[in-house]
Amino acid sequence: MTQHFPTGGDSRLERGKRALADIDGEAGQHVVSALAGIAPDFATYLFEFPFGDIYSRPGLDLRAREIATIAALAALGNATPQLKVHIAAGLNVGLSRQEIVEILMQMAVYAGFPAALNGLFAAKEVFAAPG
Amino acid sequence: MTQHFPTGGDSRLERGKRALADIDGEAGQHVVSALAGIAPDFATYLFEFPFGDIYSRPGLDLRAREIATIAALAALGNATPQLKVHIAAGLNVGLSRQEIVEILMQMAVYAGFPAALNGLFAAKEVFAAPG
Amino acid sequence: MTQHFPTGGDSRLERGKRALADIDGEAGQHVVSALAGIAPDFATYLFEFPFGDIYSRPGLDLRAREIATIAALAALGNATPQLKVHIAAGLNVGLSRQEIVEILMQMAVYAGFPAALNGLFAAKEVFAAPG
Amino acid sequence: MTQHFPTGGDSRLERGKRALADIDGEAGQHVVSALAGIAPDFATYLFEFPFGDIYSRPGLDLRAREIATIAALAALGNATPQLKVHIAAGLNVGLSRQEIVEILMQMAVYAGFPAALNGLFAAKEVFAAPG
Amino acid sequence: MTQHFPTGGDSRLERGKRALADIDGEAGQHVVSALAGIAPDFATYLFEFPFGDIYSRPGLDLRAREIATIAALAALGNATPQLKVHIAAGLNVGLSRQEIVEILMQMAVYAGFPAALNGLFAAKEVFAAPG
Amino acid sequence: MTQHFPTGGDSRLERGKRALADIDGEAGQHVVSALAGIAPDFATYLFEFPFGDIYSRPGLDLRAREIATIAALAALGNATPQLKVHIAAGLNVGLSRQEIVEILMQMAVYAGFPAALNGLFAAKEVFAAPG
Repeated sequence: MTQHFPTGGDSRLERGKRALADIDGEAGQHVVSALAGIAPDFATYLFEFPFGDIYSRPGLDLRAREIATIAALAALGNATPQLKVHIAAGLNVGLSRQEIVEILMQMAVYAGFPAALNGLFAAKEVFAAPG
Repeated sequence: MTQHFPTGGDSRLERGKRALADIDGEAGQHVVSALAGIAPDFATYLFEFPFGDIYSRPGLDLRAREIATIAALAALGNATPQLKVHIAAGLNVGLSRQEIVEILMQMAVYAGFPAALNGLFAAKEVFAAPG
Repeated sequence: MTQHFPTGGDSRLERGKRALADIDGEAGQHVVSALAGIAPDFATYLFEFPFGDIYSRPGLDLRAREIATIAALAALGNATPQLKVHIAAGLNVGLSRQEIVEILMQMAVYAGFPAALNGLFAAKEVFAAPG
Repeated sequence: MTQHFPTGGDSRLERGKRALADIDGEAGQHVVSALAGIAPDFATYLFEFPFGDIYSRPGLDLRAREIATIAALAALGNATPQLKVHIAAGLNVGLSRQEIVEILMQMAVYAGFPAALNGLFAAKEVFAAPG
Repeated sequence: MTQHFPTGGDSRLERGKRALADIDGEAGQHVVSALAGIAPDFATYLFEFPFGDIYSRPGLDLRAREIATIAALAALGNATPQLKVHIAAGLNVGLSRQEIVEILMQMAVYAGFPAALNGLFAAKEVFAAPG
Repeated sequence: MTQHFPTGGDSRLERGKRALADIDGEAGQHVVSALAGIAPDFATYLFEFPFGDIYSRPGLDLRAREIATIAALAALGNATPQLKVHIAAGLNVGLSRQEIVEILMQMAVYAGFPAALNGLFAAKEVFAAPG
């Protein structure tokens, strides 16, 4: 896949939709659908700022961006659905299962063993799901 | 620098000391010195588990490990001294200033704009310090 | 409903019970019942301090108090049952669904997109429940 | 001041700059200046998403938005500089000192007494600063 | 049961396994089994550092160690499975149900009423489970 | 010192003042004085609920209560002033310096090494202060 998303010639919304589809695949689409009945504007913001603005920037490749996101969500420990989406996204952008496991184990150092354990169990579910 | 630390032929403590010195440079040594008067055994654990065990594992390179650590500490937002040590460590293992800035900006998505801002201001201090 | 609860002439416990019933309706009673088998004194404290003391103070109306509580619980992200109770309480004290959605979307700025998303999905469940 | 910022006829950036100036006054400008040397693009995002998008939405007035922000930042407890900016912003958009104190005291219920105390001490500093 | 685990004459791994079995009983074993399919090395670290190193230290008895762990996990509020394991462990090392309830109620002061409530409900489940 | 505070024959306020003075000594008084200019009612709540209600309960001795508080505040990592007050309080109610160090080191397991390090450095300051 491409490592970033050129910013010229299309809107933040279009760029963000393309980036979200490439990175998160169907999981991203499920989030957007779930927002339809409660806060459709928030789906637009989700396309535009995280994906149209941040993930589309050229200064850091998507593999590195997903390492950062998986680490942050595992450390915070209060956003399991999003952690699972980004473990799957990590696989999509080229991280190996073993690399994801290493990131999650490392969180024991910075956020404690329970955060690492719960991250590893989230990864176990993602890895076991039919592709 | 080497990307990981062979585990054969020496102790976790020796391996961890070597890894900490390579990764954190003098900052790591300052932490160890500061522990001497209060909890010297904790310095040993710090060498052994984070650095002798985790950072020495071959499954993820040090550049990726520091991306994960910088992201996690910025997202948690309650460990500024350690975040600064690892921003410096990120530079030591080959991250560019711009890559570190990208990681920190991305944390606005996962932990909020204040977490990203405070991470960026920590980076500003580290980048301004005499090398 | 009244906007605050006069403090004269009755006990903190009575005042708190009345405030909790007015604000949280049946949800508050469920919490108290659930505590009966494990920590009945804690139900008393729950009536007395949050509701008998804090929510009964005249300096801030209940609408503003529920805005603050919904924002705080969504930002913390680790107390979903209580967030749902207070989304329902917000409706009870006069917040519109749209105002609650705005509060939750705003938390993306201060606590990240996952906190906002999980808050919005909690609101979706509360709004869908039979009144 | 106006309670929201019409979205037609100007860019998100212009709208966000105007909203930030109205809400945060000089404090917002200080943040933007501080970002200049480290991450100037992040100042643009800060204008655009929080202020150009979220605070400019018509569904919730600025007084309510600042109640939510003060509550969230006090509850999180790890972003004191931003809490101070928004305590000042709360005064700017019409909250009284007493209302801000009530919001902060209420956080004892949801995030504990230390979070409330540290929020109150932040307010004390803001209230004491020359206007 | 013994109050600590002599450190001479066996490995950290053996000492940690013995400590984990004594403190957590079957719950610890379930965690280790669950790790087998995803990160078997992390089970080793879990034996070695928390149980072989920390819980085996003589300077604080196991009753006090479990008080600290139950308090911390209830306050953090994002690791319910681990909190349940340590509520059961607290009973194993001699804490009474009432003492555990007191610890959890006290967390209302330091982490808010929702953290205390969710801790109490976790304890209710553990106390109701067949021994 | 006495291990708890009889609840008969005096008010929550009086009982709380006595408990706070016994447990926290001058540090508690400083907090109350600091509140005078911003939120004097909150000083009353602080006497009444944490100290008059919770710490005065007979089901857990003060030594155990301070173990729980030190652990929770170190794990949360965002309330350093209160952590220092309770490290001093722990000494007041009979914990040894070594026991406090053990509690703080143990937090590396549940909240990560930075939380433990920052707790240990807080203890170092408290231990170094003139009694």
